[in-house]
Amino acid sequence: MKKKENKNVSGLKVIPLGGLEQIGMNITAFEYEDSIIVVDCGLSFPADDMLGIDLVIPDVTYLKDNVDKVKAFVITHGHEDHIGALPYVLRELNVPIYATRLTMGIIENKLKENNQLKSVKRKVVKFGQSINLGQFRVEFIKTNHSIVDAAALAIYSPAGIVVHTGDFKVDYTPVFGDAIDLQRFAELGKKGVLALMCDSTNAERPGFTPSEKTVGKTFDTLFEEHKNTRIFVATFASNVDRVQQIINTAYKFQRKVCVEGRSMVNIIETARNLGCINIPDNTLIEIEQMKNYPDEQQVIITTGSQGESMAALSRMASGMHRKITVGAGDTVIFSSSPIPGNEKSVTKVINELLRKGADVIFQDAHVSGHACQEEIKLLYTLIKPKYAIPVHGEFKHLKAQAKIAQSLGIEKENIFILSSGDVLELKEEAKVVGRVPVGTILVDGLGVGDVGNVVLRDRQHLAEDGIMVVVMSLDQYTGQLVAGPDIVSRGFVYMKESDELIEEARATVYEAVQKYLDRGITDWGKLKNTTKDSLSDYVWKKTKRRPMILPIIMKV
Amino acid sequence: MKKKENKNVSGLKVIPLGGLEQIGMNITAFEYEDSIIVVDCGLSFPADDMLGIDLVIPDVTYLKDNVDKVKAFVITHGHEDHIGALPYVLRELNVPIYATRLTMGIIENKLKENNQLKSVKRKVVKFGQSINLGQFRVEFIKTNHSIVDAAALAIYSPAGIVVHTGDFKVDYTPVFGDAIDLQRFAELGKKGVLALMCDSTNAERPGFTPSEKTVGKTFDTLFEEHKNTRIFVATFASNVDRVQQIINTAYKFQRKVCVEGRSMVNIIETARNLGCINIPDNTLIEIEQMKNYPDEQQVIITTGSQGESMAALSRMASGMHRKITVGAGDTVIFSSSPIPGNEKSVTKVINELLRKGADVIFQDAHVSGHACQEEIKLLYTLIKPKYAIPVHGEFKHLKAQAKIAQSLGIEKENIFILSSGDVLELKEEAKVVGRVPVGTILVDGLGVGDVGNVVLRDRQHLAEDGIMVVVMSLDQYTGQLVAGPDIVSRGFVYMKESDELIEEARATVYEAVQKYLDRGITDWGKLKNTTKDSLSDYVWKKTKRRPMILPIIMKV
Repeated sequence: MKKKENKNVSGLKVIPLGGLEQIGMNITAFEYEDSIIVVDCGLSFPADDMLGIDLVIPDVTYLKDNVDKVKAFVITHGHEDHIGALPYVLRELNVPIYATRLTMGIIENKLKENNQLKSVKRKVVKFGQSINLGQFRVEFIKTNHSIVDAAALAIYSPAGIVVHTGDFKVDYTPVFGDAIDLQRFAELGKKGVLALMCDSTNAERPGFTPSEKTVGKTFDTLFEEHKNTRIFVATFASNVDRVQQIINTAYKFQRKVCVEGRSMVNIIETARNLGCINIPDNTLIEIEQMKNYPDEQQVIITTGSQGESMAALSRMASGMHRKITVGAGDTVIFSSSPIPGNEKSVTKVINELLRKGADVIFQDAHVSGHACQEEIKLLYTLIKPKYAIPVHGEFKHLKAQAKIAQSLGIEKENIFILSSGDVLELKEEAKVVGRVPVGTILVDGLGVGDVGNVVLRDRQHLAEDGIMVVVMSLDQYTGQLVAGPDIVSRGFVYMKESDELIEEARATVYEAVQKYLDRGITDWGKLKNTTKDSLSDYVWKKTKRRPMILPIIMKV
Repeated sequence: MKKKENKNVSGLKVIPLGGLEQIGMNITAFEYEDSIIVVDCGLSFPADDMLGIDLVIPDVTYLKDNVDKVKAFVITHGHEDHIGALPYVLRELNVPIYATRLTMGIIENKLKENNQLKSVKRKVVKFGQSINLGQFRVEFIKTNHSIVDAAALAIYSPAGIVVHTGDFKVDYTPVFGDAIDLQRFAELGKKGVLALMCDSTNAERPGFTPSEKTVGKTFDTLFEEHKNTRIFVATFASNVDRVQQIINTAYKFQRKVCVEGRSMVNIIETARNLGCINIPDNTLIEIEQMKNYPDEQQVIITTGSQGESMAALSRMASGMHRKITVGAGDTVIFSSSPIPGNEKSVTKVINELLRKGADVIFQDAHVSGHACQEEIKLLYTLIKPKYAIPVHGEFKHLKAQAKIAQSLGIEKENIFILSSGDVLELKEEAKVVGRVPVGTILVDGLGVGDVGNVVLRDRQHLAEDGIMVVVMSLDQYTGQLVAGPDIVSRGFVYMKESDELIEEARATVYEAVQKYLDRGITDWGKLKNTTKDSLSDYVWKKTKRRPMILPIIMKV
């Protein structure tokens, strides 16, 4: 961008509202004067200490406060960490959604489940197409990823062009559709790109991520080697290309294919309706038809490759699946690698399958959907951005991409590792000019945001050592004890075998409370405190545990 | 073994009492007529669903029932998964312990903490030495592992020789002491070995585990590359050889060394007293002395390489350490790899360190302490056992070793993947002839075994959705409500912001209870049930959550 052009323009503000303090929950606002567009609206899965939480969504207060400016959600691809918060956020902020074909198909499934299909405006965008959104124009550019129809975005503003890659890899020989549109990135680079926001997930890994097609060859080899057994393949529900390749190989080896696991069935159906997957006639069978074919003519494609306890594969492995059991003579292929944190549950399922006598293959039948270092370098070299804003990844990944950008000649002060809530203004120069409110909202059952830190801390406390409830009744006139104190505990010790401990605990509390009452102290706060203190001391001395203590006083 | 020899002998029974259903908790009984010896007595760390549990120890009922036969604990090496249950088990079963020098040193630290030093008989054994224990003779054979003084055991019985490797690797150039005594294994193999019980931890990994010495070279390179910064190295407290190498490199680069983390300080002291580590004079400094040296003359060796939240490194990273903070300009080397299940916590610490501005190196400064496939093949080939009993590892590892054994010509029916509690009798032929009681005993604070499935299930329930306590007082004569029902919840919703929900819930319970009372039903069981049912229904309808409901009735 020439300086003159920028003279009278305002700054373009880039405001990540999530996705930088945790994996997932990707959502970024771009603001220029009276216009805001929002790229992606993902959820994240609860951290280990968020006990009982189902999922986590971003706090969009900033968007609600500026609702008049917000023109659209522009979505890069159909993974949960990019679309999963839409049903929640749309309730508070009903703006149109723009996305490519399969991405929109998956979003529509979600909206349907939430009865939002009628109320939300949607537009399917083709690759190469641009849409005008207030002061912005947004162009969808073809990329490759572990889901079909992934797009990068070129975001045109009066202040310049920002390219946002979404999640991507460079696949010269994709299974479905075209390779990533490198020519277009080059054209944009020639034109002049202000900033590149590039996927950092694999920025620590040297080299190139192999083509998805290499997995197809692996399937051919594995099916050849296991001609006489039933074959199970576990993979991600949304990896339509992977499923396509399993089906291709199955067809080659004249096997019938059964798809198991609700999320996978849904996505395959959506992909099929949209023409994103090509299934030969008479290849898919229903689970009920499996009995009509010998083992060596069957393939079961299933969810549960991450060891999720409720997914189809885990249920089959543990004998909890109503229709399919895995056992001796079966071959199970994990076409996946464990997401960090899932290693133990994956191993658990593998051990169960092996114990049942199945042959388990858990290496080499997977490639990543994210760009490694050489691909990231390629994109930077084509696009030649002035500013680099690494996105998608934990801090260590962002840092690794920053190093790559620096190695390519981008100056250190032009590289921004942002935190969620930072307002980065891009003008003649770039700097963080402020903060907007951000945060995580916890979803538990129907409750959105009603579980906060206090409740979580209580759950952690309860999980650790359980609870002791102490109840007593006081006469409302005399203030004297008329019943109790009684102690009931849960999650502390097995009460039936701890009579003595509980009885002594009760006596301890009684003594402490009675001492207060004898001195005429009937203030409930004080009585509760002495109950807590005396019981807590006693229990710690006896057990070195700190159960939650909940004193309840009733007046009668 | 020639058949004739075995004619009149009894069978040798191999009875694993733990270690085969989980990582850790290694303990195996060997029984021949009136003699039992026990190899190792380890603990395991709680599984993810064992909320609040500190550690897990084996159920030794079988040993207690046969206490007259039990001659000794024979310990292979000083890691927690091989010695950690001793203080607990010795309380119920006081028998002598036999172990090598450093192993015994570490055991003695434990016994001291538990006031058991006087009451337990101990004997330090040298490599090559044999001890007679009833019908058994046990020879300690030098191996290599990630802790000094690790031993394999040759267990001689009238039925034949069993070789138990303990945890081992083959290190031709160990840091301290001799290489594994391959000649002795060969001699035993020539003589005739009935069964080999071999470490399976790395049985899935091809090739050879590199020598511990290679890590020393890596330290030299890394220290050379970071001449101008303070250097932190995080590793396992018990890896004395690793600490030795860090000290060697530090000395070479004229840096002072500070050791931080209680467990590491203890073990280094023990190793130093026993001559297992060689620290040049004026190299170690106390934490308080650090301020006297410039950054580039310091090395801090610390615990916390697994991301343990209470370990020194995590506290330094999060600014919770009272004496040391890590920040910009520091270099932190992870000399470890994450144990499965710890990936996320390790990553968390790495991200925190990077955010603080430290340079983090978390690759290539570690080698495993366990034998890979080629080393396992070497041992089998030297020992040529009749029977193979893979040990130490999850099912998939045991299975992987079984495959190796088969590939070396051991017949499938001579390979035994046992479960804890199996009684494998080795005679002219080998078979599982029975079961003994086994199990896991949970330790929580001072409580050993007082937390069982009921308590754990309650903790899981509490962790998931919290608790609602409903208290009410009934008149003991009329049976009518005189106070309540009142509801107090913890870990369910933030009560201060949920007045309406709680008030409606209260009304729901009141109505349900009053309906019973009006019909003259005052049975507490029934009143509690209707409380639970009505409240549970109401809460599920409103929130799709299932908190634990605890009704408490008092009579006044």
